[in-house]
Amino acid sequence: MTPSELADGGGTVPGTLYGVGTGPGDPELLTLKAWRLIRDAEVIAYPAPDSGESFARAIVAGFIPEGALEIPIVVPMTAARFPAQEVYDKAAERIGQELSAGRDVVVLCEGDPFFYGSFMYLFGRLEGRFPVRIVPGVSSLGAVSAAAQRPLCAREETLTVLPATLSEEALTDRLQKADAAAIMKLGRHFAKARRVVEALGLTDRARFVSHASLPHQTVSALADAPDTAPYFSMILIPGKDAHV
Amino acid sequence: MTPSELADGGGTVPGTLYGVGTGPGDPELLTLKAWRLIRDAEVIAYPAPDSGESFARAIVAGFIPEGALEIPIVVPMTAARFPAQEVYDKAAERIGQELSAGRDVVVLCEGDPFFYGSFMYLFGRLEGRFPVRIVPGVSSLGAVSAAAQRPLCAREETLTVLPATLSEEALTDRLQKADAAAIMKLGRHFAKARRVVEALGLTDRARFVSHASLPHQTVSALADAPDTAPYFSMILIPGKDAHV
Repeated sequence: MTPSELADGGGTVPGTLYGVGTGPGDPELLTLKAWRLIRDAEVIAYPAPDSGESFARAIVAGFIPEGALEIPIVVPMTAARFPAQEVYDKAAERIGQELSAGRDVVVLCEGDPFFYGSFMYLFGRLEGRFPVRIVPGVSSLGAVSAAAQRPLCAREETLTVLPATLSEEALTDRLQKADAAAIMKLGRHFAKARRVVEALGLTDRARFVSHASLPHQTVSALADAPDTAPYFSMILIPGKDAHV
Repeated sequence: MTPSELADGGGTVPGTLYGVGTGPGDPELLTLKAWRLIRDAEVIAYPAPDSGESFARAIVAGFIPEGALEIPIVVPMTAARFPAQEVYDKAAERIGQELSAGRDVVVLCEGDPFFYGSFMYLFGRLEGRFPVRIVPGVSSLGAVSAAAQRPLCAREETLTVLPATLSEEALTDRLQKADAAAIMKLGRHFAKARRVVEALGLTDRARFVSHASLPHQTVSALADAPDTAPYFSMILIPGKDAHV
């Protein structure tokens, strides 16, 4: 605390927690609002692997001001299936210290903060205690449709988003009732997801996109996709009405 | 054509058609890429009602350069249910003239171009004939979750997006199989959608958001929503896992 904060009896106005979507990967797909908040940030937090670079940070690296305090939230890869609750407990405590001291904290979130994002774990621990603002971002869905150059859904079609981590039975059940669909988080679940699409006779309509919006983006018919898929890839099944 | 274009035997390099997402309404939710393309645009097209202002144009009005040629695509409100094909035929022809003359054309699309957007009607008429680039935007889904301050979906949850224009039976059938859900395009279908949510016992989890990201945005529990809803409103049913 600064002397003036001590002098006013600890009545510091708390900072605001900003959950800021960085978009899918292309730094130019950042919103003007996210850009402004990051350029002006005193404290920036982001998820990071235990080795290697934080993807969320890498997207906006060119905009982070010199001298900003950075708080990486290191989630061990071995804890991938369920989040390491202790990691988020500690990160929330650390971020809470900054907020209590009156400093705003910008948390970088790949894509959109509330669309399958790990930001919810910080949000759940800090909402109610501090002011929170969410800055939505371009989601992977939009980036993948743009990359595939296919409208995703139209008119009265429903859109179903499916995590590939679901069981083969669950994927089949949900996908056969879908109009337009996107299967996310492929990685090691790719072969299973592909079998499901094939068994339902949807392969002709399906596109495979990896690393949408990044320089190494790939787009192909699902039938022509490689045998393995990275985590940042998606199977897109555009609605029939959207097949213009 | 300029003399130099005539001189090269009409081999003008065609312009590129840009389908540019403007985001949900707050001009600061424009992406840096959309902002750059609009500021540099020579020709800008956008959907417009037969009376009143174009919403897509209003979002980015502050960024449109003086002297840009504007092509409003006037879709009569009476043709709301199915798009007036003739309107898009004529608009595609007009835009095609600009592209053929070597000028890029930026088409403004509310939200994201390929997420229930009317841009698909132009895209379907012009793709293959001219280079096309899609610039994804922040969709209404992200804006509504941000406004409601509720994570939309998490972990292994599926997300189902439902147009309220579906029949009561179809809405019920799809919604009862959904984990997280969003019901869009409410307007005059609001009472029906609300009945479906109520009948499935989902009202406690449901939020109602109108005009997300705009100054007149409203957010409430669905139980506290007014009797009528504008077109730009949504019922959000966050997944249970995302209830942090």
